Amino acid sequence: MPMQQYPFTEEEKAEDIKCDYNFMLEENIGPAGVSLDEIDKQKELINIALYNMRQKRFLMQWRDLPYTQDDVMQDILNTAEVIRNKFDYFVVFGIGGSALGARMLFNSLKHLKHNELPDHVRNGPKFYVEDNIDPEGLRALFDVIEPEKTCFNIITKSGNTSETMSQLLIVTDMLKSRLGAKASSHIIATTDETEGNLKRIALAEGYETFIVPQGVGGRFSVLSPVGLLPAAVLGIDIAKLLEGAAYMDSICDEYDIYKNKAYMGALLQVLAMQTGKNISVMMPYSSAMDYFASWYAQLWAESLGKKNDIKGMPLYSGQTPVKAIGVTDQHSQIQLYTEGPYDKVITFMSIEKYREVVDIPLLYELIKDISFLGDKTLNDLIKAEEQGTMYAIFKAKRPFMKIIVPEINEHTIGQLIQMYELMTAFAGELLEINTFNQPGVELGKDVTYALMGKPGYEELLKEVQTMPKGDNRFIF
Amino acid sequence: MPMQQYPFTEEEKAEDIKCDYNFMLEENIGPAGVSLDEIDKQKELINIALYNMRQKRFLMQWRDLPYTQDDVMQDILNTAEVIRNKFDYFVVFGIGGSALGARMLFNSLKHLKHNELPDHVRNGPKFYVEDNIDPEGLRALFDVIEPEKTCFNIITKSGNTSETMSQLLIVTDMLKSRLGAKASSHIIATTDETEGNLKRIALAEGYETFIVPQGVGGRFSVLSPVGLLPAAVLGIDIAKLLEGAAYMDSICDEYDIYKNKAYMGALLQVLAMQTGKNISVMMPYSSAMDYFASWYAQLWAESLGKKNDIKGMPLYSGQTPVKAIGVTDQHSQIQLYTEGPYDKVITFMSIEKYREVVDIPLLYELIKDISFLGDKTLNDLIKAEEQGTMYAIFKAKRPFMKIIVPEINEHTIGQLIQMYELMTAFAGELLEINTFNQPGVELGKDVTYALMGKPGYEELLKEVQTMPKGDNRFIF
Repeated sequence: MPMQQYPFTEEEKAEDIKCDYNFMLEENIGPAGVSLDEIDKQKELINIALYNMRQKRFLMQWRDLPYTQDDVMQDILNTAEVIRNKFDYFVVFGIGGSALGARMLFNSLKHLKHNELPDHVRNGPKFYVEDNIDPEGLRALFDVIEPEKTCFNIITKSGNTSETMSQLLIVTDMLKSRLGAKASSHIIATTDETEGNLKRIALAEGYETFIVPQGVGGRFSVLSPVGLLPAAVLGIDIAKLLEGAAYMDSICDEYDIYKNKAYMGALLQVLAMQTGKNISVMMPYSSAMDYFASWYAQLWAESLGKKNDIKGMPLYSGQTPVKAIGVTDQHSQIQLYTEGPYDKVITFMSIEKYREVVDIPLLYELIKDISFLGDKTLNDLIKAEEQGTMYAIFKAKRPFMKIIVPEINEHTIGQLIQMYELMTAFAGELLEINTFNQPGVELGKDVTYALMGKPGYEELLKEVQTMPKGDNRFIF
Repeated sequence: MPMQQYPFTEEEKAEDIKCDYNFMLEENIGPAGVSLDEIDKQKELINIALYNMRQKRFLMQWRDLPYTQDDVMQDILNTAEVIRNKFDYFVVFGIGGSALGARMLFNSLKHLKHNELPDHVRNGPKFYVEDNIDPEGLRALFDVIEPEKTCFNIITKSGNTSETMSQLLIVTDMLKSRLGAKASSHIIATTDETEGNLKRIALAEGYETFIVPQGVGGRFSVLSPVGLLPAAVLGIDIAKLLEGAAYMDSICDEYDIYKNKAYMGALLQVLAMQTGKNISVMMPYSSAMDYFASWYAQLWAESLGKKNDIKGMPLYSGQTPVKAIGVTDQHSQIQLYTEGPYDKVITFMSIEKYREVVDIPLLYELIKDISFLGDKTLNDLIKAEEQGTMYAIFKAKRPFMKIIVPEINEHTIGQLIQMYELMTAFAGELLEINTFNQPGVELGKDVTYALMGKPGYEELLKEVQTMPKGDNRFIF
C-alpha cells in the first residue's frame, strides 16, 4: 500500500482541529455525563477495538484515500480544467454517499451564493448536486441550465441505482436529441472499475470515466473521485484537502486513547448511547458547515444503525443524527435541548476565525438596548451567542462536545472528514457491529424494483400487495 | 371575535389533506404500536384537553388568524405590489419564527430555483431569508444583491432580538451612506403594535410597519403579516392560503377525536412518546416540503420541549423533530430507521399529484436492469420508492403516519399549517404543559447580552466566567 508521509509544516499544525470533551464528563455536568470510572472499565473493549482497527486496516481502503489518489490526481485536475473552460454548468447526479460529499465541499469551501455571483466573480461553472428524483426538482433544474453548456457527472458505484440511472436516461435522451454524437462529451461517469451498467454504458458511449476504488463505500468516498472531481471543478485545492486528511489520519493512528481525538470522541458517544442518549446533535456555528452536518448524518446513521452485532445477536443500535445550525436553531431547537428529555449529545462546532468580518455600526445611541451592539462585529456577536448557548446547556447539565476549527479551509475540512470517518469506524468496533454495510436499505429498493416491473421481482410484488390497507376509521 | 364562515366549494373539499394513522397501531405493526385500549383509556385526559382547547381559544389568537387578517390584507397586497414593481431584491431579516414561515412558503409554493430564473420568467424580486448572523453568510448576501434595488423586511416581535437588530443596524448604515434620506423607503418593519425598539426606530425613521398581532408567538405567526407580506411579495395567493387554514380549522373544531385529524395525530404521537418514541421524523416525498419540515421542527420542539408541567412538576417532555427528505434520505437515514432503536415515529408526507411530470425515456433496451425504468415517469418512480420505503418500515414493525397531500398549493399548505398548529396545541394539552412559552431560551440570550456588554448584566458575566475550563487531558 503506497503510504506517503507528508512533510507537515508548522503552519499546518497551527491549523489543527481541537476537540474539547470535558463537558461529556460526570465531573463537569453531573449524572448525565460519563464517569472516568466507566472509561477505565472499558479498557478491554477499547484494546480490542484498537487492535481491530489496525488488523482490519487493509479492509478499510477509505482510510488510505489520502495516500492512494496520487495516480488519479492529475487526471482529475486536467478534466476539471477542461470542464471549467468549456462548460457554464456542472451537475452532479448521484444520491446518498454519491452526492453528500460533493455538496459538503461546495458548501464549506465556496462562496455561499456561488451560483448567483456574476460570471466574472464566480470564475467557473454554476454547480448543482441533484440528489432527488422529485419531478418538480428536476424540472426546476432544467429551467435554469442550458444542456448545451452543461457537463453532467453521473455517480453511482454499482451502476444500478434507480434514481441516478433514471436521471442518466433523461439527460442522455435530451442531449442526443439536441447534440447528436457530441452528447457523449457532456457526460462523465464515476463508477466501479469493471462492473455494473453505468460502466457498460460508459464504454459503449465513450464517456470519460472515473473509478470509485474497491472497498470504498459511498459514505466513505468523498476523498475519492466521487468528491474530488466535483471539488476540482469548483477550483477547490484537492491536494490540500487530502493533506489535511492524511495529517489527521497520522495523528489518529495513536494507541493511547487519551491522545486520539477520533477514538476518544467515539468512546464517549458510545458510552452516552448506552445510557439512553440516542440522539446526536451536530451544531456548527457556521452556515458553511450546514452540509457537513448532513454528510455526518449519513455517515453516523447508516454505519451505526444496525439490528445485529457481528455475531448476529439482536442489538438495534444507533444514534439519530440531528442537524442544528448556530445561531439560527437557537431559536428553534435550544428550548428542547435545555428542557426536554436527557436523550442527546450535542456537538458544537466552533469556528475560531471566520473568513469575513462584518462591523456592526453604532447607531441610535440613546436606545441602550440596541446601542450596546454597536462598534462591535457580527463575529463578536456570533461568538457571544455560541458561548451563551454552551453555558445554557452546561447549566442544564446536558452532555456536549466542542470541535474547534481554526478556520474553514481545505486543510481543516480534510482533517474533519478523516476524523469523523475514523470516529465512526471506531464506534462501530466498540459496538461490535458491521460498520460498512446497509442491509436495512435493500428491502425498500427491491420493492421499488417490484413496483416498477423489473423482471424477477414478481413474487415480492405479490407480497407487497398483502400489506394491510388498514381500518377506514383511521384514515380521514 | 370576527369569525367568518367561508363558503367552501366542492373543488376545495377535493383538495382535502388526508391522514392515515393505521400504522401507528399495535394491530398493524405489533408491540411498537399504540393499542386501541390505550386510546380508550385516555378518554378522560382527551376530554379535558378538548375542553381546554375550547376554553382557552381566546388565548390562542394564532388560531383565528385565518379569520382576522381581513383588515390588513389589502395593505399587504398593496405594499407587495409596490415592492414587486420597485425592487429587484427582497430580503427578510428575522430568526426562528420570524423566518421559518416565509422560507417554508417560498420553498413550497414557488419555483425551486426561483432566484436563478431569468428575470422575465421569475417575474418578481429575488428573495432571501437571512436567519443567521454568520459574517460569511451576510457578506455572501451583500455580494449578490444591490442595496439600491433591495427592500429589507425586518421582522422581530419584541424589537429586541440581537441578531435581527444587528442586521438592521448594518443595513441602515449601508443604505443611509448610499441613499441618504431615501434609505427609509427600503425598510419595512414587522413588529409589535406599540412596544419595543424596532417600533421606536420605525416611528423615528418613518418605516412602513406591519403588526405582529397580540398573543401570536413567533412559531405560530406565519399566517400574520410575518409570513403573509413576504408571501405576497412572491406573488403567492395569500387569500387562498388563509382559506385553506380556515377550512382545516373548521373541520378540526370537532369533539369526536375519531373525526379530528389534528387531535388524533397529537394523541397518537403523545402515546408513542410515552413508550420511548422520543424522535419525530418528518419525511416528505418532495423537495418543495423541505422547509415545511424545518418549520414543523421549530413548532414541535419549542412547544413541547418543556421541563415542567403546568403545575410546576418536573416532566422533561418533548420529541426531537428530524427532517428527512424522500427519496434522498432513503440513502442516508432509512438504514437506521429500519434497524436502529425503536425510538421513532415517522411521518411520511405523500404528494398525490406533483406539479410536473418528467418522462423517463426507453433506452438501452438490451440492459434489462436499466430498461425496466424506461417508458415510465419520474413520478412513477418516486411513488414506487415511497411505497417501497413504507413497506420496509412496516415490515420492520416501526410506527408511522401518512399525511396525504393532493397537490402542493396555497389551499393545501394553508390546511397543513393550521393542522400542525392545532396538533401541537392539542399535544401540549395532553402533556399538560405550557405550549406557548420558551423559558429555556432565556439564559442563552442573557449570557449573550452579558458577553456583549449590555448594561445590567454585569453579575451574570461574572457567573459565566466561573464555568469550569475543564481538564487539559480532555482537550486535544
